[in-house]
Amino acid sequence: MTEPVRDLAHLSHVELLTPKPDESLVYFREILGMEVAGEQGDSVYLRAFGDYERASLKLTASAQAGIGHLAYRTHSVEALERRVAALEAAGAGGAWHDGDLGHGAAYGFLDPDGHRFELFYESERYAAPPELRPALKNQPHRYPGRGVGVRQLDHVNFLAVDPGENRVFLQTNLGLRLTEQIVLDDGTEAGVWLASNQKSYDVTYTRDLTRTPGRLHHIAFFVDQREDVLRAADIFLEHGIVMESGPHKHAIQQTFFLYTWEPGGNRVEVCSGGFLIFAPDHEAVVWSQAERAKGQAWGMQTVASFHIKGTPHVSEEDALLAGGH
Amino acid sequence: MTEPVRDLAHLSHVELLTPKPDESLVYFREILGMEVAGEQGDSVYLRAFGDYERASLKLTASAQAGIGHLAYRTHSVEALERRVAALEAAGAGGAWHDGDLGHGAAYGFLDPDGHRFELFYESERYAAPPELRPALKNQPHRYPGRGVGVRQLDHVNFLAVDPGENRVFLQTNLGLRLTEQIVLDDGTEAGVWLASNQKSYDVTYTRDLTRTPGRLHHIAFFVDQREDVLRAADIFLEHGIVMESGPHKHAIQQTFFLYTWEPGGNRVEVCSGGFLIFAPDHEAVVWSQAERAKGQAWGMQTVASFHIKGTPHVSEEDALLAGGH
Amino acid sequence: MTEPVRDLAHLSHVELLTPKPDESLVYFREILGMEVAGEQGDSVYLRAFGDYERASLKLTASAQAGIGHLAYRTHSVEALERRVAALEAAGAGGAWHDGDLGHGAAYGFLDPDGHRFELFYESERYAAPPELRPALKNQPHRYPGRGVGVRQLDHVNFLAVDPGENRVFLQTNLGLRLTEQIVLDDGTEAGVWLASNQKSYDVTYTRDLTRTPGRLHHIAFFVDQREDVLRAADIFLEHGIVMESGPHKHAIQQTFFLYTWEPGGNRVEVCSGGFLIFAPDHEAVVWSQAERAKGQAWGMQTVASFHIKGTPHVSEEDALLAGGH
Amino acid sequence: MTEPVRDLAHLSHVELLTPKPDESLVYFREILGMEVAGEQGDSVYLRAFGDYERASLKLTASAQAGIGHLAYRTHSVEALERRVAALEAAGAGGAWHDGDLGHGAAYGFLDPDGHRFELFYESERYAAPPELRPALKNQPHRYPGRGVGVRQLDHVNFLAVDPGENRVFLQTNLGLRLTEQIVLDDGTEAGVWLASNQKSYDVTYTRDLTRTPGRLHHIAFFVDQREDVLRAADIFLEHGIVMESGPHKHAIQQTFFLYTWEPGGNRVEVCSGGFLIFAPDHEAVVWSQAERAKGQAWGMQTVASFHIKGTPHVSEEDALLAGGH
Repeated sequence: MTEPVRDLAHLSHVELLTPKPDESLVYFREILGMEVAGEQGDSVYLRAFGDYERASLKLTASAQAGIGHLAYRTHSVEALERRVAALEAAGAGGAWHDGDLGHGAAYGFLDPDGHRFELFYESERYAAPPELRPALKNQPHRYPGRGVGVRQLDHVNFLAVDPGENRVFLQTNLGLRLTEQIVLDDGTEAGVWLASNQKSYDVTYTRDLTRTPGRLHHIAFFVDQREDVLRAADIFLEHGIVMESGPHKHAIQQTFFLYTWEPGGNRVEVCSGGFLIFAPDHEAVVWSQAERAKGQAWGMQTVASFHIKGTPHVSEEDALLAGGH
Repeated sequence: MTEPVRDLAHLSHVELLTPKPDESLVYFREILGMEVAGEQGDSVYLRAFGDYERASLKLTASAQAGIGHLAYRTHSVEALERRVAALEAAGAGGAWHDGDLGHGAAYGFLDPDGHRFELFYESERYAAPPELRPALKNQPHRYPGRGVGVRQLDHVNFLAVDPGENRVFLQTNLGLRLTEQIVLDDGTEAGVWLASNQKSYDVTYTRDLTRTPGRLHHIAFFVDQREDVLRAADIFLEHGIVMESGPHKHAIQQTFFLYTWEPGGNRVEVCSGGFLIFAPDHEAVVWSQAERAKGQAWGMQTVASFHIKGTPHVSEEDALLAGGH
Repeated sequence: MTEPVRDLAHLSHVELLTPKPDESLVYFREILGMEVAGEQGDSVYLRAFGDYERASLKLTASAQAGIGHLAYRTHSVEALERRVAALEAAGAGGAWHDGDLGHGAAYGFLDPDGHRFELFYESERYAAPPELRPALKNQPHRYPGRGVGVRQLDHVNFLAVDPGENRVFLQTNLGLRLTEQIVLDDGTEAGVWLASNQKSYDVTYTRDLTRTPGRLHHIAFFVDQREDVLRAADIFLEHGIVMESGPHKHAIQQTFFLYTWEPGGNRVEVCSGGFLIFAPDHEAVVWSQAERAKGQAWGMQTVASFHIKGTPHVSEEDALLAGGH
Repeated sequence: MTEPVRDLAHLSHVELLTPKPDESLVYFREILGMEVAGEQGDSVYLRAFGDYERASLKLTASAQAGIGHLAYRTHSVEALERRVAALEAAGAGGAWHDGDLGHGAAYGFLDPDGHRFELFYESERYAAPPELRPALKNQPHRYPGRGVGVRQLDHVNFLAVDPGENRVFLQTNLGLRLTEQIVLDDGTEAGVWLASNQKSYDVTYTRDLTRTPGRLHHIAFFVDQREDVLRAADIFLEHGIVMESGPHKHAIQQTFFLYTWEPGGNRVEVCSGGFLIFAPDHEAVVWSQAERAKGQAWGMQTVASFHIKGTPHVSEEDALLAGGH
């Protein structure tokens, strides 16, 4: 048996596109409790108190909501080179470019569904300015005590026309591990959850029922306690933020979740709980169509929009919601 | 720069020695909510609901309280072979022996302070019997709904005459990473925290003020929420279990802790919280003597016994407690 | 202004009817964590760890699910006599009878919708047997550390053909205070919440859309923390108990709720949170049809069955669920 | 048996004296998350999000830290008149004066130890301005999402030379109920807990070991969840607020507590948990000297300063702390 590839260290950051950049900024800064870590062009960079890197969110003004790119940091320079070589050998190569604020040269490429990924190694270690200096030096910046208080970016969920194809691509070329999976009776992979490290997943693909490539289902930020998610719901309610579903616990991955719509139109999750996967030889948990039909939230159903909507918004969503799913 | 060694997958289990095996068993099974996973000779094996392996605790009847051994699982057979070769090259070699119940051949050796470690790769994947089958198939066995409900073994804290010497040994030979450290004004390392994976630590050494080699400070089990630790305190109180310190949050590692004395005389922690370390190039956080003097629990002091007592119990502890420290 | 009547001290207990008494008993004892406090005829009495009286639940075998009676304890003998006199003067008199196990003579009568109420004053103060003796003497019996661990009966929610008529009856004759209310655009009272003390409600009437008199919507037990409700969901899932709705927070009364179906067919809620009402001159909060349409659970909708089903079950429920509501 | 007096509705507000009014204001507004509800002379009025009255804290600039007065609202005008008549008949009469901002005429008097009490009935019902309007109309103002987020004033703990004498005074003249009590072997009452309603206490006296009359031990604000207290500790730590003791659970009253020193020098508690007392004939729980010696916090000891210090600060405290206690 060949030893598994473990070249990717962790999900580093995500670029989110918003047609309402000012309102989206209020959502992430005042309501989620993140801090601005820089600005450049049409983008504002934001960071959570647990981020050791400069930023985990790049918020970019755009005509439409959706995802800009997702970036992983590798374990080393050599690991980065190995992944680039693998992508190019597979005919999936992209191009190097100067990184975002806070990290070095990045190699960008597309997954089969058309989402943009970036890989890099060189990264600026964040040093808090005096007003954000934490009481405990093992924490990157002080606990905000403002709004939800998210600790870090947790995962990104893409929509894809064919989740299985994207899974194979990421396993083969990036060395991500498949940890959980929905396989329908006809063999279709309706959802795949992949991980770069001992978190049980950091990127997910679920089926795009509108069959539109390159869309985003949601991005998720982590809070320490389930009670923080409940308090987040109290805070979202006070701010008039629309909550779509939750707080509840998914059967898959056991994530305790709350889905909201940020003002720019993207679905943003606040999550907690779940578990780590320690087994180096973990076998993916496969959920069948029948198991899946039992309901996702402690055995209860989630709302229809959750299974259909994404960003950018497409008119097929409305047709599907009108017709059931 | 050489790529770092990452051959150890995770802390797997610990063997605890108890002069009161029946009462200790009640503590772990009825109060912590673990399940018996096998018996052999003078040992009972126990597992928590999140263990994917057979057991995380081997409870062995013994004349004195203390630690039997601590075992890590490696990432692969090759990784195991690399570590054994490194240990033997360093003149720290031990010997192969048949494993405990639930895993294959293990390589045992001693750290400089005399604590026994074991390494192995082959491991039995746990399959729950019908009465312990969980509602969600991504969980090894059902949530007990009994007692504290610990999810998994979290870490082991050894006492050592010289923590620094043991740190170097584990970094060099096992590839563990140093994540946090106490360095006194005279350069003495009063405490070291090491990790095999993205958990921020799984093994710790703190100074043995009695200068007795090979002792245990405590073992710790993880619960999902800080509220579970508070509820644990309620439960320990009802069962007459002596609590030494906590619930509180350490400055170092930010662990939310509660220390109890199990009936056999060993200190056992129930913990939650903390954080993961994602940075592949994490630099150890170093706490100075002055920082340390600020108090460990949200800036408050912990009790004197916490800094002195261990197992097996030695008479020097009493002398130190009488004289202050 | 006349001083308000405050003769009722608190909701004392409820009698629940079950066609599956053995399975219902397992639900309340093993899953909710209550203790058996006596048996008599077809009834088993159960108590929660916070009950200072003997029992808060009388579980009675019956052909159909539903409610037997609800009992309030008065502040004094004189207060009891005043309430009986008021009921008789209003032509709503009932009859005295020997009490249930644990309390003295009770006066039983019916509300306009036909639910049975009982009032009493003399009550046996519970003294825990050795095996249930708590560590802290200000607690009636020890925290169970088993299952959900409910502290006490919280409230009873009746269905009624006309909630408003029943509200007037309870305000006038028992001196209960109206704390919150749903008033539709046509003036219909769709729901009323009443309180005997500083808890914000202990009895509720919501409209019976099947127009069947005397039915029960649910009974509710209190746990100390919202996290306990989340953990309850984990436990219910493991035991195959069907959850209908929640964990979520109601807009009305801000109760944090989880509704389950106990094996006998009655809806049982586990709840926490909410608030106390300290104002002696509290004015009822009135929710309009439009406000109500915004959704009940942090602004999200609850499932249709929640608004229709009750016990005993009637066939009109199925018709309503098929036709929407 | 005479029916018990229940003329006091609830603890309404407290006046705190501070030599550092600006810094104390930051503590209550930015760290505890209260809102300013008015200013007058040397006083700033503050309110918490659950206060239905205008304010629960009057913060008054003063040469020394300490307590100004404590105020109860009565159930009615008649109840107020009855209490005034009782006080005057007992020779403990005081005088009427115009109330603070937010309430009508108040009757002020002193307890035997010299603390000032006020009683009133007329009270302004708070109506939130647009920027503080809550999402849920059954809540006085919006959840702050800032700092600790306290809901309401919970209780006041006075120091007294003779707690027993003050207990008798409040039971007799105000109709407060004794709920818990510490009685030493020599019959001395070392602590008394009294309640006006179903909260298990709202005013407490503990012995002043310096034998200085009229001092304050602490005031306490309530948060909804124990987890909120833990998060409060995280927030206090970030703001450099000194924590004296906790988070922990008292044996007496089972309050989950955290004691801090606000910048003006007064001890302020953030608390949660505990229980309600529903029994109209509740008998006080009496803790003996031996029971008390078992430790207060889940069986562990609290720090010495907790048993000695109060405001205003007196030099005897230092002598006692130096000499043990």
